[in-house]
Amino acid sequence: MAVKITGTGSYIPYVIKKNNEFLNQNFLNSDGSSFKVNNEIIIKKFKSITGIKERRYAEDHHMTSDLAFFASEKAILDANINKETIDYIIVAHNFGDIKKGTNQSDILPSLASRVKFKLGIKNPNCVCYDIIFGCPGWVEGVIQANSFIKSEMAKTCLVIGAETLSRTYDKRDRDSMIYSDGAGASIIQKVKDNNSGILSHKTCTYTDKEAFYLFFGESYEENNSKTKYIKMNGRKVYEFAIIHVPKALKECLELSGKSIRDIKKVFLHQANEKMDEAIVKRFYELFQMEIPENILPMSINKLGNSSVATIPTLFDLVKKEKLNDHRLNKGDIVLFGSVGAGMNINAITYKI
Amino acid sequence: MAVKITGTGSYIPYVIKKNNEFLNQNFLNSDGSSFKVNNEIIIKKFKSITGIKERRYAEDHHMTSDLAFFASEKAILDANINKETIDYIIVAHNFGDIKKGTNQSDILPSLASRVKFKLGIKNPNCVCYDIIFGCPGWVEGVIQANSFIKSEMAKTCLVIGAETLSRTYDKRDRDSMIYSDGAGASIIQKVKDNNSGILSHKTCTYTDKEAFYLFFGESYEENNSKTKYIKMNGRKVYEFAIIHVPKALKECLELSGKSIRDIKKVFLHQANEKMDEAIVKRFYELFQMEIPENILPMSINKLGNSSVATIPTLFDLVKKEKLNDHRLNKGDIVLFGSVGAGMNINAITYKI
Repeated sequence: MAVKITGTGSYIPYVIKKNNEFLNQNFLNSDGSSFKVNNEIIIKKFKSITGIKERRYAEDHHMTSDLAFFASEKAILDANINKETIDYIIVAHNFGDIKKGTNQSDILPSLASRVKFKLGIKNPNCVCYDIIFGCPGWVEGVIQANSFIKSEMAKTCLVIGAETLSRTYDKRDRDSMIYSDGAGASIIQKVKDNNSGILSHKTCTYTDKEAFYLFFGESYEENNSKTKYIKMNGRKVYEFAIIHVPKALKECLELSGKSIRDIKKVFLHQANEKMDEAIVKRFYELFQMEIPENILPMSINKLGNSSVATIPTLFDLVKKEKLNDHRLNKGDIVLFGSVGAGMNINAITYKI
Repeated sequence: MAVKITGTGSYIPYVIKKNNEFLNQNFLNSDGSSFKVNNEIIIKKFKSITGIKERRYAEDHHMTSDLAFFASEKAILDANINKETIDYIIVAHNFGDIKKGTNQSDILPSLASRVKFKLGIKNPNCVCYDIIFGCPGWVEGVIQANSFIKSEMAKTCLVIGAETLSRTYDKRDRDSMIYSDGAGASIIQKVKDNNSGILSHKTCTYTDKEAFYLFFGESYEENNSKTKYIKMNGRKVYEFAIIHVPKALKECLELSGKSIRDIKKVFLHQANEKMDEAIVKRFYELFQMEIPENILPMSINKLGNSSVATIPTLFDLVKKEKLNDHRLNKGDIVLFGSVGAGMNINAITYKI
């Protein structure tokens, strides 16, 4: 018995927001003061660190659960399964459905229930729940699906990561340029092929000093309403990630019994290009190696950071040969690795 | 090997809100029109159906994660475990932390991460996530913990249900009198005693016609802001619950191999006294039996409906002999059963 991703799908919204569209944004420091440099310089520096040139926003009439539904339809089609055989629908998100122009999160009912409703699944034994786990939510949903399958609670799970970060950011915050919208979905199934699928996994939650590195905070603009937005202590997140993510990836790989030389791709959460490169560099350094060529598929330059949607979308693109010259072959060993609010880190060693 | 609740704790807020405190509330019909009867009659009818005389509200400076923390401390003490040995902290809620006087849900970071932070747990292998699953969230968290233990991902889990519904209701809605605040926590562990603990479980999600029986909607007051509140189609919820909850309890009991005559208590979600009585009556009718005496512990008259907190609080009170003359003895078979937003229903057959 093995647990395998038998189908993938993603939804990349049509609305493209380019860096130069932020040229007239009135960015402020966290203390409300103005920057001493102009936006052209801010954006240039932003681009050089994060790698982001443009990002995607959901259409005004769509919400997170709509994007989740669009991605799910594709994953079900790709897995070629009868949707009525799905035992679990697990939706990872961090803000619920936010209607354009409002600031309230709507998670009543859960987004998973909404996706089931939109998919028109009638079977009451298809159980729907949402998981709140920061950006690593999709990877954690897969780990939970793996547990349900192993403990014989399920045979087929639909795990989705979906988010509309464009509706949660403070326009006065430079970090707003990072955030993007999207959804990625996958079908996780029990399969007979013993020698493939999820080989090992590892999850950590750091809260001692780290719990509020990503948080919900007020605008940098003084006298603003009390509305809260996604906020992060970018420097702390960076320092945290480049130490702890390589360590988690190494632990996860070792649990699988596979060698570092077996790894063909590392699917990392896309929050910052420089950070991702540093993470993979340090990961290989733990094995006294240099980064192999073409190991790190990157989507951030065009898709930004769409939180929980990033990894399943990236994997879907590579699997379907839609991302540069990245290719996957049967038998390839890959790693998934994510980091985000919580602070949570997780990883999966996976055989294609 | 068995999976058992080895410790429980609950936090019942100190602030008591009695029915007569709603006498001057301007209740409206869902179309914004006034009622033809006065509040005295509305409250009398409300009391006769729901059984609710008073409910509890969190103190102004507390949020859902604080209540979750208070209940968790007690559960850890009751289980007599080292908190650093906890593998998972699972918090069930449906609205996150809502600061008094605001309308935004704050789930960044997850409430589970906040609870771990407040508990001062350092171990990064203690994984924290939130589950959104309507009122049955705590029962579902226990079912997930059971899976993690069975699949050898965990040995000890802390599962909490916590909510502050007093901050999510529309003051113009009569249903506002139902809602209450609280938290219940439990330690779920792998134990050697083969003949106890979780014997079976059953979960269903109904979305075909039912997905939006509980939903997030605008105030009944016209020209109000676009703020949304917890709303329900009470009649539909009632009709749904009295058909499907007895069926789920029966399926769950049959999966355990135990007889209906073995059942000593049924711990039902407390949303409406008349509904709970009808559910248990119909459940016993499925076995051609009448309701045995003293089978249904009820807390709703004093605690109202505190959503995910209700069942763990009720179980904690009975276990600690704090609820009327209800007693539990080693070897007793009990059922947990819940229904709520999603629409979700779940049940556990459990041996004390």
